[in-house]
Amino acid sequence: MIIDKYNKRAKKINSLLCVGLDADFAKIPKRFLKKKFPQFEFNKWIIEETHKYAAAFKPNSAFYEARGDKGIRELKMTMDYLIKNYSDIFTILDAKRGDIGNTNNGYVQFIFDWLGIDAFTVYPYLGYEAVKPILDRKDKGVILLCRTSNPGAKDFQDLKVKGKPLWQIVAEKVSNEWNKNKNCMLVVGATYPKEMKKIRSIVGDMTFLAPGVGAQGGELKEMLKAGLNSKGLGLIINSSRGIIFSKNPKMEAQKLRDEIRKTKNALLKGFRG
Amino acid sequence: MIIDKYNKRAKKINSLLCVGLDADFAKIPKRFLKKKFPQFEFNKWIIEETHKYAAAFKPNSAFYEARGDKGIRELKMTMDYLIKNYSDIFTILDAKRGDIGNTNNGYVQFIFDWLGIDAFTVYPYLGYEAVKPILDRKDKGVILLCRTSNPGAKDFQDLKVKGKPLWQIVAEKVSNEWNKNKNCMLVVGATYPKEMKKIRSIVGDMTFLAPGVGAQGGELKEMLKAGLNSKGLGLIINSSRGIIFSKNPKMEAQKLRDEIRKTKNALLKGFRG
Repeated sequence: MIIDKYNKRAKKINSLLCVGLDADFAKIPKRFLKKKFPQFEFNKWIIEETHKYAAAFKPNSAFYEARGDKGIRELKMTMDYLIKNYSDIFTILDAKRGDIGNTNNGYVQFIFDWLGIDAFTVYPYLGYEAVKPILDRKDKGVILLCRTSNPGAKDFQDLKVKGKPLWQIVAEKVSNEWNKNKNCMLVVGATYPKEMKKIRSIVGDMTFLAPGVGAQGGELKEMLKAGLNSKGLGLIINSSRGIIFSKNPKMEAQKLRDEIRKTKNALLKGFRG
Repeated sequence: MIIDKYNKRAKKINSLLCVGLDADFAKIPKRFLKKKFPQFEFNKWIIEETHKYAAAFKPNSAFYEARGDKGIRELKMTMDYLIKNYSDIFTILDAKRGDIGNTNNGYVQFIFDWLGIDAFTVYPYLGYEAVKPILDRKDKGVILLCRTSNPGAKDFQDLKVKGKPLWQIVAEKVSNEWNKNKNCMLVVGATYPKEMKKIRSIVGDMTFLAPGVGAQGGELKEMLKAGLNSKGLGLIINSSRGIIFSKNPKMEAQKLRDEIRKTKNALLKGFRG
């Protein structure tokens, strides 16, 4: 199972931190803009500064597509660099994709095979039959959008279906019907610990990608309480801007890794009495 | 309004046909594989064969991403060719994107600004606040996924919310709240005329992108009856494989254009008594 890769790394370095490689061209430090491959050089620097603390890295596709084929090329260079130098670190493409049936093979080829990514984010809205070509990749991970971290998430995700919010239906379906290859995960925003707790109660030990810590205001303690699974894992806690565009990415990554670790340890101690 | 571009072209050539440029590398004729830019050369040929009948062209991003930066480059070459030679033909990128807030700017830059596409398909699941940066582009079109053409669509889209299916809530929200810039459209599968009729009754003259004719079995007459708006327009009827991978794309495009035209004329005559 691909999630073993994440769990192994998370345990090895005692960290649940995912560093979001959102190399926004408008925000990367000016010294990189002069380089031939600015987004790649920026990422390389961030990777070198933060890899010690990172159980996962997560580029968001949008920031690379923004530059057309050049950006896609630098995303590939970033992945090649990661695979060559830090092959034990879990990689996620925040791509938020999802087409119908065989069309998804294009995304599978792009993300899993060409880029060499371990898992990517996918919309469940088109249904099981549509997403199946992605789910069929037993060797890779599929992270279904369940309860996102943004304020607008409520517009559709909170709508009640037979008394249950839509995000709950998504969690149930993914857990009960979609996870035949044990390769499903869920996006559950760090900003909604109550929802996360409920989802944890439904899906067993399934792993959550939890964005929204830091810049989006998610609270660590509440989230860890709600989201840790029975193995003290189950969370990929992502921070992007708060780390990569800070004055000192290394320090910020270490700080957040430490905060997660400390809070988690205190909680687990509490659980164990 | 960007939809005027489509309407003008549709009226000028009396056609509601959209040709899907799904240049699947595994399916394009072998003679193109020897070329330096196989997907672009294939598309150029398809465009030359079918442009007379096409009110719109719609590449699906997945088939280009499958080849990494090379595919993205050939998608750009395809768009450059279209803009240079057939600038009055409406263009859609079937990208099925949608991220949170400013991250969407990456997709906006990629699709609207770099590729020069007129409209792209977008997931509504993250809510209004998330999609706003795309909706804010008054000069461009946003095609929200409402009721898709695939069998699995029912898994989530048919779920009942206060007695209404989710696709109806999507249609209502887009029509009543999201369409401030009059740049919204909806994906409504040609395979579901009953649903299309209901959606037409909700959204007034809003245009539908209707995939699923031909290969997916959508019936023309039922769809036109359900989907035409008060101006005898309102439908972008897409066919991809059925045209581009046929023995004679020109003939197939003409045939489908003619069928749509004939069926539409008979219906409008009927309406007018």
